[in-house]
Amino acid sequence: MAKTATIERYPATGTELDTRAQLLAAASEMLIERGSLNVSLIDMAKKSGLAPGLIGYYFGSKNGLFFTLLEEVLGKSIGDLDHLVKMPLPAKDKIRIHVSGIVNTYFRYPYTNRLTHYLIGEERGGWDRKVAEKFTKPLADAQAAILKQGIEEGTFKPVDPMLFYYNVVGACDHLFFARSSLVNSFGIDCVTEEIKRDYINHLNETTLAGLLVR
Amino acid sequence: MAKTATIERYPATGTELDTRAQLLAAASEMLIERGSLNVSLIDMAKKSGLAPGLIGYYFGSKNGLFFTLLEEVLGKSIGDLDHLVKMPLPAKDKIRIHVSGIVNTYFRYPYTNRLTHYLIGEERGGWDRKVAEKFTKPLADAQAAILKQGIEEGTFKPVDPMLFYYNVVGACDHLFFARSSLVNSFGIDCVTEEIKRDYINHLNETTLAGLLVR
Repeated sequence: MAKTATIERYPATGTELDTRAQLLAAASEMLIERGSLNVSLIDMAKKSGLAPGLIGYYFGSKNGLFFTLLEEVLGKSIGDLDHLVKMPLPAKDKIRIHVSGIVNTYFRYPYTNRLTHYLIGEERGGWDRKVAEKFTKPLADAQAAILKQGIEEGTFKPVDPMLFYYNVVGACDHLFFARSSLVNSFGIDCVTEEIKRDYINHLNETTLAGLLVR
Repeated sequence: MAKTATIERYPATGTELDTRAQLLAAASEMLIERGSLNVSLIDMAKKSGLAPGLIGYYFGSKNGLFFTLLEEVLGKSIGDLDHLVKMPLPAKDKIRIHVSGIVNTYFRYPYTNRLTHYLIGEERGGWDRKVAEKFTKPLADAQAAILKQGIEEGTFKPVDPMLFYYNVVGACDHLFFARSSLVNSFGIDCVTEEIKRDYINHLNETTLAGLLVR
């Protein structure tokens, strides 16, 4: 919790760490409020009560700030994934924990996928490669290790880890992508705790049904 | 085929229909070439060999052009879906045809999902509602009808159509979202015909495994 907690709760006491954390907290809050990435440096600075120039100083650019925010939000989950792979649990339990983890992260920080999608499209500045290195590849590697374990246990059918990656991540992602699609197509205001839980159950059931040897 | 074919092949003979089709064809080609939505009205006009002002005249705005392009690309698929629902086939065959249809559309027009995501986020101008009305809702309704048929046949387990929608559409969508993620995370240059076919098989297997009563 330590890392993500700094985003939300770091007290403003004027040290360098606090300034950086305040800017990240302001960015995080504005992205949640707006439900889009249309947030200017000026707006984020205003929200944090700090000078806009500090964003350049600490993060280099708006993309730098966005990437750092992703690191704060996803960094711990990616680290946890590494532990999960090594835990003495059956592969099917690891898949459940993994799918729940992705959905819970999106639920808590609903801008995660929009931000990832955006930076993946930013070839200039190499943000696409940085996102792949820091997030996509470790995630895909962890999944591949769990799938391998399941096949070796004899519980999983052979499956292409790349196809599995796009299937599972795409599915986890899509519910949180567009609030307007929920409202306009299904008459639902937002993803509640209950819908989130139902979605986790639905995805786990589908994913495991596709994997398990009958 | 008639509708989408106009995008690619309409000959330039100077009539009103041709001008409109030429602008759409130029937009479609540029979106494929660039792999992003960073395409200006000036660029698209230049590509078509026509005056930029004509885009405003025919489509009102860049968003208007984008929405019309989506209508051309997805309109026929949405119409086909309506026929599919009414066909005298078992529900499980309809699911297969439906999943293949979505993936094939994304494969042929790789900007479809990026464009949909973008317009779903455009509340100003009501593009989010228009996308829901024209594409999301008809798709979700067709899926709900097929799921209902499968449950009535006794072949499908009960499933929440909304959760199913986000699961299946998100999964179909994600492989085509970011070419850079394929390159940087899996060392693959682009989605080939073979990868597309494997992905369709993978998704159909997973989706049906989650639905079928054992």
